[in-house]
Amino acid sequence: MSESSYSPLIPHIASIDDAAFRQQVQQLLDNKTKPLGSLGLLEALALRIACILGDTQPRLANPQIVVFAADHGLVAQGVSAYPADVTWQMVGNFLAGGAAVSVLSRQHGVALNVVDCGVARDFSPQADAQPPGAPRLWLRKIAPGTQDSSLGPAMTMAQCEAAIANGRALLQALPGNALLLGEMGIGNTSSASLLLARLCNLDVETVTGAGTGLSGEGVARKAAVLRRVLARHAGVQEPLAVLAAMGGLEVATMVGAVLQAALERRVIVVDGFITSAAVLVASRLQPAVLERCVYAHRSGEPGHSHLLAALQAQPLLDWQLRLGEGSGAALAWPLLESACAMLRDMASFASAGVSNQSNA
Amino acid sequence: MSESSYSPLIPHIASIDDAAFRQQVQQLLDNKTKPLGSLGLLEALALRIACILGDTQPRLANPQIVVFAADHGLVAQGVSAYPADVTWQMVGNFLAGGAAVSVLSRQHGVALNVVDCGVARDFSPQADAQPPGAPRLWLRKIAPGTQDSSLGPAMTMAQCEAAIANGRALLQALPGNALLLGEMGIGNTSSASLLLARLCNLDVETVTGAGTGLSGEGVARKAAVLRRVLARHAGVQEPLAVLAAMGGLEVATMVGAVLQAALERRVIVVDGFITSAAVLVASRLQPAVLERCVYAHRSGEPGHSHLLAALQAQPLLDWQLRLGEGSGAALAWPLLESACAMLRDMASFASAGVSNQSNA
Repeated sequence: MSESSYSPLIPHIASIDDAAFRQQVQQLLDNKTKPLGSLGLLEALALRIACILGDTQPRLANPQIVVFAADHGLVAQGVSAYPADVTWQMVGNFLAGGAAVSVLSRQHGVALNVVDCGVARDFSPQADAQPPGAPRLWLRKIAPGTQDSSLGPAMTMAQCEAAIANGRALLQALPGNALLLGEMGIGNTSSASLLLARLCNLDVETVTGAGTGLSGEGVARKAAVLRRVLARHAGVQEPLAVLAAMGGLEVATMVGAVLQAALERRVIVVDGFITSAAVLVASRLQPAVLERCVYAHRSGEPGHSHLLAALQAQPLLDWQLRLGEGSGAALAWPLLESACAMLRDMASFASAGVSNQSNA
Repeated sequence: MSESSYSPLIPHIASIDDAAFRQQVQQLLDNKTKPLGSLGLLEALALRIACILGDTQPRLANPQIVVFAADHGLVAQGVSAYPADVTWQMVGNFLAGGAAVSVLSRQHGVALNVVDCGVARDFSPQADAQPPGAPRLWLRKIAPGTQDSSLGPAMTMAQCEAAIANGRALLQALPGNALLLGEMGIGNTSSASLLLARLCNLDVETVTGAGTGLSGEGVARKAAVLRRVLARHAGVQEPLAVLAAMGGLEVATMVGAVLQAALERRVIVVDGFITSAAVLVASRLQPAVLERCVYAHRSGEPGHSHLLAALQAQPLLDWQLRLGEGSGAALAWPLLESACAMLRDMASFASAGVSNQSNA
């Protein structure tokens, strides 16, 4: 696959792997007043953030949660436990401050952005009505939802590319050095399962789950629908084409945002199943995006474990969350701040006058 | 075992289990704008804190980390990778603000208390020197360390009881409704392994680990020492007697603090292996203390998994931390605050106008 064929829509993401720098940070960690490696995953997290920001004294600044929202034509096939109206209703809830991601972003002082990438509802009046300091609504609608992917492609390639361009431009307009990914879209676990099944060549049953709360029978029906969708697009293998055929407008916009954030060396905090699917697509276009990612949690949605394995990701929390919205990313946020604070502010053995002779 | 025989040193801790109240909180959770149960462990955590505080709108107030510090006579037998001097050196580091627990408590606005329960160093001048607002040092020294438990009891019963009384009195002097447990004491993973092995009837090899960083050979030597200690105190079975024979002064003081915190219905945030061992002892005296506990993490110290299983505890983080100090409790603290915020501030389906008809 030639990268230049996507250019300039898909930027080249250079590797930031730097063994000497990594060694330098590791040495700082090893000299902190604690037994070697005794802060476990917190040390790995600090190392990763330092490498992303290229700073041995990393400081996360002006973090932005972006909740990408859109509707899915496939919902007509009965793949979700909730009606499609819940997508726009929840957008209203995000903006009004009553959703989980609203509460958690407020708790941590993380700016909340909501993007209408393709919700089947006109939000223009509401976007104007948000007072300064409130969650910001961005109108980036490509279409009022995707087409039903069991009947044809979810998006045209032009729509898919426009969504990616929107995601890139949006990130360019956002301040800060950290992006927390969130999403809302009734039907979008189906999209994530389809992308995962096709791009990682996994059986669709093993990566299909209850989503918002299907019964066992409901999950079986959903898997049967997804099998039909995959058959409908049997020849489609190339990442962008897979995204257009079976993805969502929020997923495509998120792919653009992930690419741009990676290009700018922002810390990308991945939430659950759907945001991980967007990262999977982005990584098939530009593998080095993965160097910029931190994984907030392992979702209760069964496909997520397969997806994390494919991304070689170690999640911070294993809490059986399956809400989406970026709620897991927001929940995990202070853990990232702790990693940075530890690396910046802990004393060394020498500075604290603590003995470091070990008689192991 | 008669409870009254310990009275008044050991308070009676009544069960706070209340099915009707639990049901009331569960209903509030189920009406929040999210699929049923989709916030996983965050919901379980919110339910637990609400039940401890007896408040459907729980608010954590004025949280206190208490780092219980003491030295261990058993260190003479070569059970630790670090010299005993590190105990007092790290107390200095806590007070100066350079330790992991210093950094994390500062990050989260949690008050840091350090208690000299039995460190082999005179801290009187330093206690006076701490400026207001700085970490507070409490002088509650019973003795400059325990005796070598391979030769006789670590403490006399009078010392053990005095330490418990100190812990209770200390908690009575502290404000707030949450206690985060921490500890410092070179040699205290040995104490924790001994308490666990005896009270849960486990083989000492399975519950002995590297502590601050022993080699494989060092762990084998440590386990051999611990086996000798257990043989030396073969007849000792009763919890307080076990604590006196093989515990530490910081563990005994912590047992008192846990009992008092439980009596006052504070949320007790348990850190790693040693603090869990103190909770184990306290729960053998008064089982209902466990209703008040939240477990911050599963430690990298192998005995901790056995101990968590004995306590039927589900930890919040699985990060291979093995530092102690209360660093894991401090790290996990914002997750508790998130659970409360979620329960208090998330909208219900009705209040947000979100559909809750499921077609599962």
